[in-house]
Amino acid sequence: MSNRNYRNPLETRKNILDVAFLEIYHHGFKGTSTNTIIEKMKLTRGAFFYHFPTKEDLGYALVDEVLKNMILDRWIQPISIFKNPIHGILKNYAKLIEAQEDAHILCGCPLNNLVQEMADQPGFQKRIQAIMELWVQETKKILEKAKREGFLKKEIDLKHLAEFIVACQESSYSMGKALNSRNAMKTPHKALSQYIDFLNQ
Amino acid sequence: MSNRNYRNPLETRKNILDVAFLEIYHHGFKGTSTNTIIEKMKLTRGAFFYHFPTKEDLGYALVDEVLKNMILDRWIQPISIFKNPIHGILKNYAKLIEAQEDAHILCGCPLNNLVQEMADQPGFQKRIQAIMELWVQETKKILEKAKREGFLKKEIDLKHLAEFIVACQESSYSMGKALNSRNAMKTPHKALSQYIDFLNQ
Repeated sequence: MSNRNYRNPLETRKNILDVAFLEIYHHGFKGTSTNTIIEKMKLTRGAFFYHFPTKEDLGYALVDEVLKNMILDRWIQPISIFKNPIHGILKNYAKLIEAQEDAHILCGCPLNNLVQEMADQPGFQKRIQAIMELWVQETKKILEKAKREGFLKKEIDLKHLAEFIVACQESSYSMGKALNSRNAMKTPHKALSQYIDFLNQ
Repeated sequence: MSNRNYRNPLETRKNILDVAFLEIYHHGFKGTSTNTIIEKMKLTRGAFFYHFPTKEDLGYALVDEVLKNMILDRWIQPISIFKNPIHGILKNYAKLIEAQEDAHILCGCPLNNLVQEMADQPGFQKRIQAIMELWVQETKKILEKAKREGFLKKEIDLKHLAEFIVACQESSYSMGKALNSRNAMKTPHKALSQYIDFLNQ
């Protein structure tokens, strides 16, 4: 048989998610067929459908697992090494803009793409909303630490600021994609940086 | 024959674009088939393909005509009646957030949806980029007027501010959609309003 033999079901599942992530990142969820993934991986259809009986099941797992971890790995975990969490948020954000490959500026943010494409479908909506709320919540925890340690003024509304930070971060990818420009990605970063200085003055 | 007889080709074309706009707003470009539009309008296939030989032609016309006019009608034209253009931008922006129907919060912004779904395809990319640049450019013209008339401090970088205003406006729809919340739409508005006060102080 010519199909690749994945002996470890967990490894197979992870590999399917990795391949699906890239296909969907480049072609959208609606523009990706499960057959393409099956063919690329040289899987049997049975092995694929054992893990993901429907395309929705695959999409839900992508949001719940891959995108959730990606948000935490990219935007939350790196901040813990900074003494000043506010500097951490801004430096990590600037670094992610610089690290975006030229060819990927037009691909935007994988979560934002899925938001725009799928948020009106209830199964996706509740999962996407949960991850966005997690992102805001974890950002707010960083701000709470910053406030406790004297890096943010006491009267600042942390829920508002956390939501605005996430809005700026998302809009960097969205504006970069729409204008096909890394400089456009930097605009919300620069404004956020000035805005925090203003709140803190 | 049961097909509706559109005698005026320009009217037919406009009607196709109106129906296509709503279908694509609710189901995405990839999720909309030209057959659905043809059936909804009770058109002959010949009449449809006379106007739009391919689905791409339809999508391009939607961006070049419908979305372009929508951006100008919603975000640019209304500002001219305000004595202070900065108040105009912020009041019009707030009004558009309030005017968004509950059911449409999850649909987001039609242009942003298309950006996220289609910006990696060259034919769409150049058209979307042209409209985003127009939006920024027209916003910058409003800011130039505001500066000339003393409503903005002289040293403010108007290109940066115009891009950030558009980024906030887009991100209101994006965050509203992701969090299924009108309050989330208001976050970038509130921050933008404070940011402009800060620049102007």
